[in-house]
Amino acid sequence: MTIDAALVRQARERLYTGVISDVLDGLGAPEHAMKPHVRPLDESLVVCGPARTALYMEVFHVEPGINPYELEIRLIDDLKPGEVAVMACPRGGRVAPWGELLSTASKARGAAGCVTDGLVRDVKLIREMKFPVFAGGIGPLDSKGRGVVMMIDVPIVCGGTAVNPGDWIFGDVDGVCVIPAGLASETFRRSLAKVEAENTVRRELERGDKLADVFKRHGIL
Amino acid sequence: MTIDAALVRQARERLYTGVISDVLDGLGAPEHAMKPHVRPLDESLVVCGPARTALYMEVFHVEPGINPYELEIRLIDDLKPGEVAVMACPRGGRVAPWGELLSTASKARGAAGCVTDGLVRDVKLIREMKFPVFAGGIGPLDSKGRGVVMMIDVPIVCGGTAVNPGDWIFGDVDGVCVIPAGLASETFRRSLAKVEAENTVRRELERGDKLADVFKRHGIL
Amino acid sequence: MTIDAALVRQARERLYTGVISDVLDGLGAPEHAMKPHVRPLDESLVVCGPARTALYMEVFHVEPGINPYELEIRLIDDLKPGEVAVMACPRGGRVAPWGELLSTASKARGAAGCVTDGLVRDVKLIREMKFPVFAGGIGPLDSKGRGVVMMIDVPIVCGGTAVNPGDWIFGDVDGVCVIPAGLASETFRRSLAKVEAENTVRRELERGDKLADVFKRHGIL
Amino acid sequence: MTIDAALVRQARERLYTGVISDVLDGLGAPEHAMKPHVRPLDESLVVCGPARTALYMEVFHVEPGINPYELEIRLIDDLKPGEVAVMACPRGGRVAPWGELLSTASKARGAAGCVTDGLVRDVKLIREMKFPVFAGGIGPLDSKGRGVVMMIDVPIVCGGTAVNPGDWIFGDVDGVCVIPAGLASETFRRSLAKVEAENTVRRELERGDKLADVFKRHGIL
Amino acid sequence: MTIDAALVRQARERLYTGVISDVLDGLGAPEHAMKPHVRPLDESLVVCGPARTALYMEVFHVEPGINPYELEIRLIDDLKPGEVAVMACPRGGRVAPWGELLSTASKARGAAGCVTDGLVRDVKLIREMKFPVFAGGIGPLDSKGRGVVMMIDVPIVCGGTAVNPGDWIFGDVDGVCVIPAGLASETFRRSLAKVEAENTVRRELERGDKLADVFKRHGIL
Amino acid sequence: MTIDAALVRQARERLYTGVISDVLDGLGAPEHAMKPHVRPLDESLVVCGPARTALYMEVFHVEPGINPYELEIRLIDDLKPGEVAVMACPRGGRVAPWGELLSTASKARGAAGCVTDGLVRDVKLIREMKFPVFAGGIGPLDSKGRGVVMMIDVPIVCGGTAVNPGDWIFGDVDGVCVIPAGLASETFRRSLAKVEAENTVRRELERGDKLADVFKRHGIL
Repeated sequence: MTIDAALVRQARERLYTGVISDVLDGLGAPEHAMKPHVRPLDESLVVCGPARTALYMEVFHVEPGINPYELEIRLIDDLKPGEVAVMACPRGGRVAPWGELLSTASKARGAAGCVTDGLVRDVKLIREMKFPVFAGGIGPLDSKGRGVVMMIDVPIVCGGTAVNPGDWIFGDVDGVCVIPAGLASETFRRSLAKVEAENTVRRELERGDKLADVFKRHGIL
Repeated sequence: MTIDAALVRQARERLYTGVISDVLDGLGAPEHAMKPHVRPLDESLVVCGPARTALYMEVFHVEPGINPYELEIRLIDDLKPGEVAVMACPRGGRVAPWGELLSTASKARGAAGCVTDGLVRDVKLIREMKFPVFAGGIGPLDSKGRGVVMMIDVPIVCGGTAVNPGDWIFGDVDGVCVIPAGLASETFRRSLAKVEAENTVRRELERGDKLADVFKRHGIL
Repeated sequence: MTIDAALVRQARERLYTGVISDVLDGLGAPEHAMKPHVRPLDESLVVCGPARTALYMEVFHVEPGINPYELEIRLIDDLKPGEVAVMACPRGGRVAPWGELLSTASKARGAAGCVTDGLVRDVKLIREMKFPVFAGGIGPLDSKGRGVVMMIDVPIVCGGTAVNPGDWIFGDVDGVCVIPAGLASETFRRSLAKVEAENTVRRELERGDKLADVFKRHGIL
Repeated sequence: MTIDAALVRQARERLYTGVISDVLDGLGAPEHAMKPHVRPLDESLVVCGPARTALYMEVFHVEPGINPYELEIRLIDDLKPGEVAVMACPRGGRVAPWGELLSTASKARGAAGCVTDGLVRDVKLIREMKFPVFAGGIGPLDSKGRGVVMMIDVPIVCGGTAVNPGDWIFGDVDGVCVIPAGLASETFRRSLAKVEAENTVRRELERGDKLADVFKRHGIL
Repeated sequence: MTIDAALVRQARERLYTGVISDVLDGLGAPEHAMKPHVRPLDESLVVCGPARTALYMEVFHVEPGINPYELEIRLIDDLKPGEVAVMACPRGGRVAPWGELLSTASKARGAAGCVTDGLVRDVKLIREMKFPVFAGGIGPLDSKGRGVVMMIDVPIVCGGTAVNPGDWIFGDVDGVCVIPAGLASETFRRSLAKVEAENTVRRELERGDKLADVFKRHGIL
Repeated sequence: MTIDAALVRQARERLYTGVISDVLDGLGAPEHAMKPHVRPLDESLVVCGPARTALYMEVFHVEPGINPYELEIRLIDDLKPGEVAVMACPRGGRVAPWGELLSTASKARGAAGCVTDGLVRDVKLIREMKFPVFAGGIGPLDSKGRGVVMMIDVPIVCGGTAVNPGDWIFGDVDGVCVIPAGLASETFRRSLAKVEAENTVRRELERGDKLADVFKRHGIL
């Protein structure tokens, strides 16, 4: 499941979620796109890397004598270069699991980015450091007394989509795709080929060809 | 129902949805504004033109031997200069009926823009080509196996608002208004007059006049 | 409950909602953050000031012979320099209580900004005048025949959070916090101190220290 | 707009909302059905009568020295025999405008029933007195400090449907229809005729006729 | 995929959705339960049989010269004894695809029942005829001009759950399970065995055994 | 915080949530009512007793070698006579934490009932045993692989309302009230007195007195 570094670089530079999504449909994996409320903080950034997962539980009190950030800290401190932290939160928009300090710590470890269906804060500083963060919304509330990471490196559902540890995350301005670990290389290869075909289609449409004719020629829309 | 071209040009350049909305209220057509989740991809662009409608159905399989894009292609290839494609989608945010290739094809036909309450993808390229697209959200999923256009040029409800073929669409940073075909000329004329009055009100408020006095003088807020 | 002007200036310049939120948690006031759909029109602006409240009622007709804007006008005309208009709207996204003319009038009175969980219109002009407005969405519909201010200067709930007249509002790119009037000075003082500590933490994380170690040293995340 | 008493009696005894709804569709009034969360407390009861309307506003405090029930009391004390109290509430399910004491008072005035899209309480006693109440839910909270009737006998929207004072309400186990005042007699007359045709259709289907044949013969489904 | 008639009879008489759901979990098919808003009209009835599917599209006009019920009628007239009509509707609660006449026609064909995530009407008469109907709600509106069946006998999603033609439907007071066709016999057999074990567990709990002990003995909860 | 047994018996027999809710409003505790989707399985039953709390976390896999029911079992086996199990679930309606076997075990311990904002299954058998269960819905799915109790006897939010261990739960056909432990005796005493006054009001309204007059005399509505 390890992927050729050059392929990853090409994917990051030349691919976009639309083409990856079409290829995953063709590979029989149609449930790969997070719901549209998971948006990038910075629409110009791309995230691409294997997932490290965390699962939050909503809580309603602070347990005395307990470090509520324990597992969260353990996950961040263990991030390997290129990995993506994926933090699944309970519905309801109360928990902001991510902020600027976690971004700083993750970036220092070489992590590729963070994806969460919860809220995020310190948006201004995160944007300044150009660290790719995708989130279900923006809000100032810390997780303490509101949410606790109870499990890390387990299967989760984030943004309505199943994510297993090691699945590949690809996110850009159009949203976030989850690529099953075993399909990642094939997905990137096919997507790079499809980008070429789409460029041809675009040129033909730009010069005024009918959509019907172009679709008949290339089968792409 | 054909409208003077100079009037349309003036409308596009000088009007905004707020003033059009007030005028439509005054003309007895208060149900003219799409719900606020329908947003422009590019907040600096304005769309103004008669509607060509399409109605999507949510589906859960690909019918073998059928071109799922047939009616969609037919509508785009038949767009006349200045027309606006209005694509109504089922609730639930699963279908992304619009993307860059449809934008390219529509622009090549001279279309004025696209409005949909579904999702849209290829946002970056659409923004670069300065084609006005208003959508219910952003997401990478193609419509194939998820949604099919079953009817074109029929009455629809898009963004919670009824749209008949030929109704005029006016969209900008504040949202999208649907102007019944028979009211379009009158709406544009009255709106242009109201813009003048609002400019006077603004100047008086800027110099510090009380709102109560200004409202008494002009009856505008 | 009057606050030192220099403290307010420092707060406006150096604080952000994340640190204010943490301090309010520590002061035993955890229900202080408006829901995340209340967003700034201009993410670079900060609003900070005491609240003047208004409560809208959804209506479904225009009462003949009545000025539907009466209380709204009275509130705006009575705004004191530095105050923040807080307009609570019924759920459902139909009422746009705020627009450019109210912004112009409020700015002329020296008001610090506006916060509403309803919609706002004339976004382009409001942004140009650099007046801080936070809203539950954007839409062109005027309130006439849709919503009426029935009470001003009463306790309200806006963005899911209780706001009493005189409570302090602090909003920025991360959202809007409501600071109980009696806690405002203390909140600002503690927040300014916490900003310093967060700067230290950030520097240590940037140089690669483990999150676990930094958290042990400073107790801040 | 006064309706023949014998016709009303027949309507109450022999009609049901399904047939009334079909007839209103045929009369060009398709927006007549309240949303399905408005349910009867007692599924065996029918309500039929002209609407007296009230419009609630959500509030967040008790205004000292004010009777919060003033307009509510005035409406109930003024109910005429056969009238239906229709109480429109803000979304969110916090206000329970109706309960057993209002039911007792209304019944003593001869009122035909109550319809609200808010909550209702004292369900057990209301059911025992066989007074028809249709509500958006059940809950124990009184309206005091949560909601106040601000207008009576005005146009409202209840259960998502416009109701004007004097419109006829017809509710049964299948939901609530709002019949524009001017259409009430005609609606009842046509519905009584359609009931006969539906009885014929039912008999033919029971004996095993194909739906296609029966629909061809009678045009009813 | 044909199932032994005696097994089906036993299933209908002795099983309940709870035990079927547990068995499907054990067979690796956890996505088998329709969402909880799909409820039986009569909580004492059970539906059990293979699915015949229909897919509705929301529409906003009546197409002149077209029979809007064509495919719906074709499906009902083609129902075989023991089959279950499963009607998938668009979200939003506007379409009531089922009523008393369709129930009468289906019962005359020997159909086992109907499941829909849309609304149903004529509830009183349907209950009287003891025909099992499970629906997403109750409402009086006919589908004409609101929804049209565009496909029958295709894969659908109903109540949030995928249903293929021929899958087995089992519904009772606790909800509706969808059993993949290939797993139906095995599911029924294992469920009948599990019912026995649950009876033992119940007896031990009734006599006061600790849950921890009973669970250790039988592994059932 | 222990309460006189005779007072509890009287409360259970003569009180209802409406009167308890009014009294709690008067005692300054207005946030005491669970949201209206938490409904009794059997509308004729009353639950009254101190809360034992459990907090579920949504999960998306079964952890091998772990008993997912461990804390749940511990709580049930530790229930004392008269106690009420209160099980808080994540939003989304996927987890059914309660069923017939837990009801049987709890009843055998003498527990007074169960309240959950999640789903419940085995409704038929639970109703037959006359054990009071209040739930957020009905569904067949077991919690295994979907939800795990991670904490017991901690502060929770259930049905939108804060519940501390030891708070008193009072539920009936009108919903569920949470009575802070320290207010329970006073609440029951005042409620018993208010029931008398309401009986007087009812008699006066039944004999036809105007609501305005009765409200003036007694101040009760």
